[in-house]
Amino acid sequence: MKKKFPSELRMDLVSNDWVLIATGRAHRPDVFVKDQRVKEIVSPKDCPFCKEENIKEKIARKNKKDGSWFVISIPNKFPAFSEGDELQEQRQGPNRIMNGLGYHEVIITADHEREIAQFSIEEAKMVIDVYQERYLSLMDKKFIKYISIFHNHGKEAGASIVHPHSQLMAIPVTDPDLRSGLDGAEAFYRSQGKCVYCAMIDWDIKDGQRIIYENEKFVVLCPFAPQTSFETRVYPKEHKPYFEKITEKEKEFFADALQKALNKIDKKLEDPAYNFYFHTAPCDGANYDYYHWHLNILPKFNIWAGFELGAGIEINTIKPEKAAEFLRK
Amino acid sequence: MKKKFPSELRMDLVSNDWVLIATGRAHRPDVFVKDQRVKEIVSPKDCPFCKEENIKEKIARKNKKDGSWFVISIPNKFPAFSEGDELQEQRQGPNRIMNGLGYHEVIITADHEREIAQFSIEEAKMVIDVYQERYLSLMDKKFIKYISIFHNHGKEAGASIVHPHSQLMAIPVTDPDLRSGLDGAEAFYRSQGKCVYCAMIDWDIKDGQRIIYENEKFVVLCPFAPQTSFETRVYPKEHKPYFEKITEKEKEFFADALQKALNKIDKKLEDPAYNFYFHTAPCDGANYDYYHWHLNILPKFNIWAGFELGAGIEINTIKPEKAAEFLRK
Repeated sequence: MKKKFPSELRMDLVSNDWVLIATGRAHRPDVFVKDQRVKEIVSPKDCPFCKEENIKEKIARKNKKDGSWFVISIPNKFPAFSEGDELQEQRQGPNRIMNGLGYHEVIITADHEREIAQFSIEEAKMVIDVYQERYLSLMDKKFIKYISIFHNHGKEAGASIVHPHSQLMAIPVTDPDLRSGLDGAEAFYRSQGKCVYCAMIDWDIKDGQRIIYENEKFVVLCPFAPQTSFETRVYPKEHKPYFEKITEKEKEFFADALQKALNKIDKKLEDPAYNFYFHTAPCDGANYDYYHWHLNILPKFNIWAGFELGAGIEINTIKPEKAAEFLRK
Repeated sequence: MKKKFPSELRMDLVSNDWVLIATGRAHRPDVFVKDQRVKEIVSPKDCPFCKEENIKEKIARKNKKDGSWFVISIPNKFPAFSEGDELQEQRQGPNRIMNGLGYHEVIITADHEREIAQFSIEEAKMVIDVYQERYLSLMDKKFIKYISIFHNHGKEAGASIVHPHSQLMAIPVTDPDLRSGLDGAEAFYRSQGKCVYCAMIDWDIKDGQRIIYENEKFVVLCPFAPQTSFETRVYPKEHKPYFEKITEKEKEFFADALQKALNKIDKKLEDPAYNFYFHTAPCDGANYDYYHWHLNILPKFNIWAGFELGAGIEINTIKPEKAAEFLRK
């Protein structure tokens, strides 16, 4: 008998966008009628990541000097994607459906409250070490085409547990929304003979107005056309398509840039909720040498409402030049 | 001297997505550090739409039987898009930028609390009358390529004023996010010789599981691949590309379908926040006979967090078949 998957991927027939139906948590319709705003687990005594029995299965681990763990990766207890032997594709009428095959891990740091924004560079680097280690370990697994690493901070950004944690999902599809960034980079490369991100970064550094921070190998900036107020991105200055190939030396500079970016947002904007996520080349075996990996940080000040959803145009109430000036100072 | 616009459109160099920078409300960076969650104007005594001086400039008006107004359209006091004579396109480095030229109206109903969900069919039809009237009046204006009509209900869905109101924005661009739906419909039409929405609706009606409500001319359903839990759509059953061509008779059936859809969501899910918006053919002069207009209602139960933003895949915690069953009963 076929393994029952806790989730399924469905494709929108018009846009070819994928959505995931994750019934693993067995939501009955009537739970929606109650107050369904994200409930936040605030206290250490209720925190699942502070209880040893919940974090026994450590897939990756970086230790403090005293030998206790500082960063671990564990399987998600309610996985959106689950390991399996067979990618089952079906048709239902005109529609495409697929089992939610993949991996879903939670990457946790030991302290219940302290975030990357408050870490030392060495501590931030240990988190990046685990991101890379888990990426490298999952990228060659059967059926895996893309690995998404992200971090939700604060209730308004969808984090239900205060204890700082990132997540990694290794998945069997690349969505058209993601594809549009890859295709745009490829089209620019073909027509201009250079990387679109390199062109942007060169101009942003020359222009100076949107730069928040720079070190030898990374730049932190507010993009020219931001999706949210105070959107901040971290780019390697050199052309690098694949995050997972980052070197030890580069990780130190990336840890410095990421920590500075989050620290400025935390301090200047008084601990807003935010999401951050990597955009890196898919691991589907194709050649993405034209791509340029980066990390996006989206502070959560606005709600995407009817116009953003309907017309696809995000509204910002502050220019990125002003946002960068405010964060830079 | 050139008119100073309160907003500008900027294009993302990689994805070609447009974003709007609306500095009309003159947000200084430091207003973000305070509590910036959407503040809700709840009381009629503070309500801008309950004060006659704010709603003097009535662009369109539908009256109650006693001659007092029931629905009006007025200019938005803080327009995201503003009227102008010249579409100014610039380059800034490698980037494209354009003035935020267009129209931004607010369509208000008289009662401070009663929503379309509680209206009679006749009352709901008056709202649709005003949508159509304003659409027809703005669609031929110079530079206007797309008209977005939408409605935000509840704080979590981005509504800052409780008093029920819809908005209309007539804008000079069609965004790639919107374009992907149009292009998908066109590609299906070319390859299959029929409308993709007609194919979906036929199958959904035959399958029955996702249908919430039907009348002679419209169907209300949960889509097979929903963007949010309990996403609900209203489709004309016949192939109709252009909302603005809706007839008097069809408006009665549409009013019935829309009111029923919102009423079921309101009652069964206990007044959740939601956004609704139209997707209809652009008014840019091209032929969109392959398209099929519809209305999307997105109840706001989930927050799109790091995975949705980073990988472009929305996660739902209830199957649309179960959602439809729950709303249908």
